[in-house]
Amino acid sequence: MQLLKDRIIRDGQVIGTEIVKVDSFLNHQIDVALMSEIGKEFATRFAGLSIDKIFTVESSGIAIACATALHMGNLPVVFAKKAVPNTMTDQCYSTEVTSFTKNTVYSMIVSKKYLSRNDNILIIDDFLAYGGAALGMVELAKQAGATVHGIGIAVEKSFQGGSEKLRQRGYRVESLAVISSIKDGYIIFKNNKEGER
Amino acid sequence: MQLLKDRIIRDGQVIGTEIVKVDSFLNHQIDVALMSEIGKEFATRFAGLSIDKIFTVESSGIAIACATALHMGNLPVVFAKKAVPNTMTDQCYSTEVTSFTKNTVYSMIVSKKYLSRNDNILIIDDFLAYGGAALGMVELAKQAGATVHGIGIAVEKSFQGGSEKLRQRGYRVESLAVISSIKDGYIIFKNNKEGER
Repeated sequence: MQLLKDRIIRDGQVIGTEIVKVDSFLNHQIDVALMSEIGKEFATRFAGLSIDKIFTVESSGIAIACATALHMGNLPVVFAKKAVPNTMTDQCYSTEVTSFTKNTVYSMIVSKKYLSRNDNILIIDDFLAYGGAALGMVELAKQAGATVHGIGIAVEKSFQGGSEKLRQRGYRVESLAVISSIKDGYIIFKNNKEGER
Repeated sequence: MQLLKDRIIRDGQVIGTEIVKVDSFLNHQIDVALMSEIGKEFATRFAGLSIDKIFTVESSGIAIACATALHMGNLPVVFAKKAVPNTMTDQCYSTEVTSFTKNTVYSMIVSKKYLSRNDNILIIDDFLAYGGAALGMVELAKQAGATVHGIGIAVEKSFQGGSEKLRQRGYRVESLAVISSIKDGYIIFKNNKEGER
């Protein structure tokens, strides 16, 4: 998605050889017009599938997931949580996720009320690096018996191997901007055309 | 906002005399069509003010803030964070917030890059109870020197006093559904007309 790649080039901030900060438009400050275009693009790429729910994880997946849901006919969005508030008394599915970026392990949970074997879901997230968060969502979907029709990612860092792990498990991954490497402070995109996998 | 009150009556879950769970449409599963209506309502109530940024806090404020930003001409959304990821190397404004609902104290932070003295902001959040989160956002805005033109809340529990604290400090608070009490498992709304404060 050229619009997103251009924005990453313009406003992304490279830190070392592993991290690209996009917090000026994606995960601290949010450009809602860009989110809407991203949502539209996911709706196009995953058109024709019988998806009835969008699944994401707090916090920075929420804006993109909602934009996608709006463009797919107002589908419900469910976001997994990273902690258990005391108002959450229901039974939950849960899994442990290792965040390589933050060097932490956290519990990812979702209420059994909002993910079930009848759900046909699309997983949406802002970033895919080593795949921890996406694999966590896949695991929660598996526990619930839900069917995962695809995984939509805004920014993928393919050199960290997350998408490879997901594809090996048979999942369709659509990433709108694929960073293949970071060299001397420059971002190198994989030359993927629109709709290419 | 009758639509929201009706939804709370239909799908809200009362726990004791203090808690109303609305996680089937607001803060775990999200009804994006309802979010859009809520955003439209905030845009109407805060029309005519020179607001140039929406300010909220992760996670459940994000969907409503984005919907509001879309209806106010694609304003940028900035969400305060509750923890410091290691990619956040910039200088931040920060404050300590007591969550009475969760019985915890947490740091609320925002990068100095995304909140400044030139900003005219509207604070948006899903819930207002004792006012901890809203007062935290007000404090961050104060540190940044930003001007707070109003505070828009989806669900207020007025019996917990948060809105009173904010109004005493001179802030305009617009709550779309005001719960004045919870009695014998029933939700009692304050009889506020549209646009009434």
